[in-house]
Amino acid sequence: MEIEVESGILAKALSVVSRIASSGKATLPILNNVLIRVDGGKVSLTTTNLDMAVVEYLPVSKSKDGVITVPAKLLAEFASNLPKDTLVKLALDGTKVTTKAGKYSSVLNGTVADDFPELPEIDEVKMVSYKMGVDDFKAGVNQVLMASSNDMTRPALTGIYFNTDEDALYIAATDGYRLAERRFIDKVKSEVRAIVPTSSLSEVMRSLDDSVEEIEILFDETQVRFRFGEIEITSKLIDGSFPDYRKLIPKTNEAELVLDKAELTRVTKLAALFAREAGGSIVLEAKTSTKTFSVASVANEFGENTSEIDTEVTKDERMILNSRFLIDALGAIDEEKVTLGFSGKLNPIVIKNQKSDKYTHIIMPLKS
Amino acid sequence: MEIEVESGILAKALSVVSRIASSGKATLPILNNVLIRVDGGKVSLTTTNLDMAVVEYLPVSKSKDGVITVPAKLLAEFASNLPKDTLVKLALDGTKVTTKAGKYSSVLNGTVADDFPELPEIDEVKMVSYKMGVDDFKAGVNQVLMASSNDMTRPALTGIYFNTDEDALYIAATDGYRLAERRFIDKVKSEVRAIVPTSSLSEVMRSLDDSVEEIEILFDETQVRFRFGEIEITSKLIDGSFPDYRKLIPKTNEAELVLDKAELTRVTKLAALFAREAGGSIVLEAKTSTKTFSVASVANEFGENTSEIDTEVTKDERMILNSRFLIDALGAIDEEKVTLGFSGKLNPIVIKNQKSDKYTHIIMPLKS
Repeated sequence: MEIEVESGILAKALSVVSRIASSGKATLPILNNVLIRVDGGKVSLTTTNLDMAVVEYLPVSKSKDGVITVPAKLLAEFASNLPKDTLVKLALDGTKVTTKAGKYSSVLNGTVADDFPELPEIDEVKMVSYKMGVDDFKAGVNQVLMASSNDMTRPALTGIYFNTDEDALYIAATDGYRLAERRFIDKVKSEVRAIVPTSSLSEVMRSLDDSVEEIEILFDETQVRFRFGEIEITSKLIDGSFPDYRKLIPKTNEAELVLDKAELTRVTKLAALFAREAGGSIVLEAKTSTKTFSVASVANEFGENTSEIDTEVTKDERMILNSRFLIDALGAIDEEKVTLGFSGKLNPIVIKNQKSDKYTHIIMPLKS
Repeated sequence: MEIEVESGILAKALSVVSRIASSGKATLPILNNVLIRVDGGKVSLTTTNLDMAVVEYLPVSKSKDGVITVPAKLLAEFASNLPKDTLVKLALDGTKVTTKAGKYSSVLNGTVADDFPELPEIDEVKMVSYKMGVDDFKAGVNQVLMASSNDMTRPALTGIYFNTDEDALYIAATDGYRLAERRFIDKVKSEVRAIVPTSSLSEVMRSLDDSVEEIEILFDETQVRFRFGEIEITSKLIDGSFPDYRKLIPKTNEAELVLDKAELTRVTKLAALFAREAGGSIVLEAKTSTKTFSVASVANEFGENTSEIDTEVTKDERMILNSRFLIDALGAIDEEKVTLGFSGKLNPIVIKNQKSDKYTHIIMPLKS
């Protein structure tokens, strides 16, 4: 195995793949390593944590076939500390990889590739495939990611649910207290129902850089693959059934308020400061008598806070909810104006953009 | 007590003073609070952690005398979340402070000022005083801060030693393994020997912003006061005797090497990557035969690294030291070229700028 590659290219590729390699003492030490494979002049770097694998193809100036694994983070840091535009030569000698870059030389102790976990075979021809722009992908994922759960006792809720309905692909996440849904791709031809681990999707998000314009998402029965630029991230799907979330979203609201997003965010943050003692509980109140919408903390040891916004109000409403969830939801709104939909204090509040109907966020009320 | 002040000014002042207030449940709850005092139209905000106190004077548009304490971090966050350029009115009602800023209103539950710890009286006329430019102050402090110790069993080493010698003021710090000294102010008239807690000096550094040009440092027997802009930070001195550090610095070196700082930093970082298993130990070696200076890690489980720099060498030298200390020291060098002074493998290495003699850093060798 031999490679000659520019230090900057090597460093960038390793910075992506080394992230999912273990650092230090993994139960299976080879999970610390990156698999370097040169096959017919094509060079790939692969890491895995058993739940997911990242492969990046590396454009090199010279190569000689062969395969080895070496400590991923160590090689990544070595490459990133080299001067840019230096030619790095990696060469295999037994199980040692010697790296030379001008006056800088290292020897990395490798492990034979036979010990590296087998990566799952996927027949891409049989997979369901979607393509979309990277900007739209990022924006959509960021709008639902925060609503997924960390609770490992309910595995289905620790993922993002990709599902098709009436020719559109949707993504949705819920932790049982709130739910976010985004219409992701219009006019799709194939159907899918799959729960992608939030951690895998976060890794895809981190690996996307500005040089990439399109992303392909492929599903089979048990796996998902994201392909973009020179990178392929393959992850197991979560085995479980996602709640039938559509019936949780109120179809119509008793009352709707249209508010300035920045103003509502500000008053919610102010109330949240005073709501810490109360676990973040704040009171939202719309009054027809004064034509005001108010956000208030519940009085506590340190003090209290109330802010009012003048607005059209068609019906008196009052509900208590977690301020952090409302701040998260407002952060996902694209437009300057946000619509709040109320259906009484026991039903969830619906948060949407004023104009676009692509994004829906609901928050369950707290008991008053 | 009443104040009318622009929200941005209030937020900036509180961001400084609230930092040393306790957050949440302090043993003495009033240490969570900021003392707001209006006396003859002069408004001051004060916080203390008993070891140090910060006072900031606040330019206000209107005021009425009075005094109260309120939760510091809560008021700071309230102010920083208000729109800029809003007029904030604070008014005392019993022990409650009502704050109004347009449509945003809060009530903070205060505590009477009688419970606030008494701040030490200082007779500034009797104090030794030094003045200097803020840029020089920051640069100098940053060159010694990293060498101070966290070991609370040796309190004198957890501070920065301000001391005069032959008409100059020096600052120095050591953790027993390395030592940094900076000639701080030339041609001073008064003498001082005082150990300022590193934590207090770090707080001063954080509180200095670009709007301030000069800083005054005042010492009495037990305290130090830093005054700049509208801020005064007063701290207890550390009661103890600092080591007679000057005799630890070799007067002359057996051999000196002049190296490019950036290049030496790079090769040290590369060796450090491979030195983690060995607690950061790296080997420095100068060879007259090859006219090279090399930096190498000791071979370990993951591999090894060696880099060579071509340079003039007058004497063979070899020493082992902690790579992190060398990286820290090089980070404090101002010039492009650094001078390394060797005096055998059992004596400290001396690191200085090639030209300026203001700054001296020594590192004890590790046993080979």
